[in-house]
Amino acid sequence: MESQKALDEKYMRLALEEAQKAAELGEAPIGAVVVREDEVIARAHNLRETQKNALAHAEILAIENACKALGGWRLTRCTLYVTLEPCPMCAGAMVNARLPRVVFGAKDAKAGVCGSVCSLFAMPFNHRPAVTSGVLEEECTAILSQFFQKLREKRQKDRIK
Amino acid sequence: MESQKALDEKYMRLALEEAQKAAELGEAPIGAVVVREDEVIARAHNLRETQKNALAHAEILAIENACKALGGWRLTRCTLYVTLEPCPMCAGAMVNARLPRVVFGAKDAKAGVCGSVCSLFAMPFNHRPAVTSGVLEEECTAILSQFFQKLREKRQKDRIK
Repeated sequence: MESQKALDEKYMRLALEEAQKAAELGEAPIGAVVVREDEVIARAHNLRETQKNALAHAEILAIENACKALGGWRLTRCTLYVTLEPCPMCAGAMVNARLPRVVFGAKDAKAGVCGSVCSLFAMPFNHRPAVTSGVLEEECTAILSQFFQKLREKRQKDRIK
Repeated sequence: MESQKALDEKYMRLALEEAQKAAELGEAPIGAVVVREDEVIARAHNLRETQKNALAHAEILAIENACKALGGWRLTRCTLYVTLEPCPMCAGAMVNARLPRVVFGAKDAKAGVCGSVCSLFAMPFNHRPAVTSGVLEEECTAILSQFFQKLREKRQKDRIK
């Protein structure tokens, strides 16, 4: 049987694959996967620019797909894997979906609410997901920094033209 | 020209109409309206049970409709009216949509993040909506308490049967 650490890394690799799909669309590379008892229920990547929709974060799309797949709004027995620390909207959606556990990779100093800007799950809401952080942190951080580095280079070139 | 207070009450009445539509579907009666420069851009009501979707709060559906209507994810120059104090997910969506202002009616002691459980907009995120609270508070509170009172009575009857 695989250890929890090995399972977490396996599913975070799927989330990284999703992040890569976002990058190929010119979206900030963030990916998410919902897993229930070693079965992938939903996967999604950031589509904010493509969908022109403020809500289209990877986690929101993954939660929406998972609710559809399971036929209800309670994601009991599910774990959500996401490459970047969730923002308030996505963390709030996890509370609302009664998600028992979230696993994330890279920290988000500007918008993360699982330890960075605040700890939303430590507040007295009616549900409190467990959090595991730092899974494949280097890869999750690298895919984002490479994307933004390329974006800056492109902007610089466009300015010189 | 109408005063800001009169305008706020006018649009909160529309949000209350939306809440009523939710009640008629057996959903917790919460309604939301997005307005830009005295024009209604989007309106929506809670559809969590109907859509079997943890994300289907009135504000999320209204923000999604507003992004579609305006063709972009930034809801600049918009005000969102909602009958109940927003939860973390919805308040986070308002930050992500760069919504300049939110107006709510009733307080939510259990899940509200505009003063009740915490003050999300006082935290150092990259956008901070202005908040007006307590607009038509009595009506917004009454429609919710009546709904839950009826629900309790129905459950009691079902138990006796």
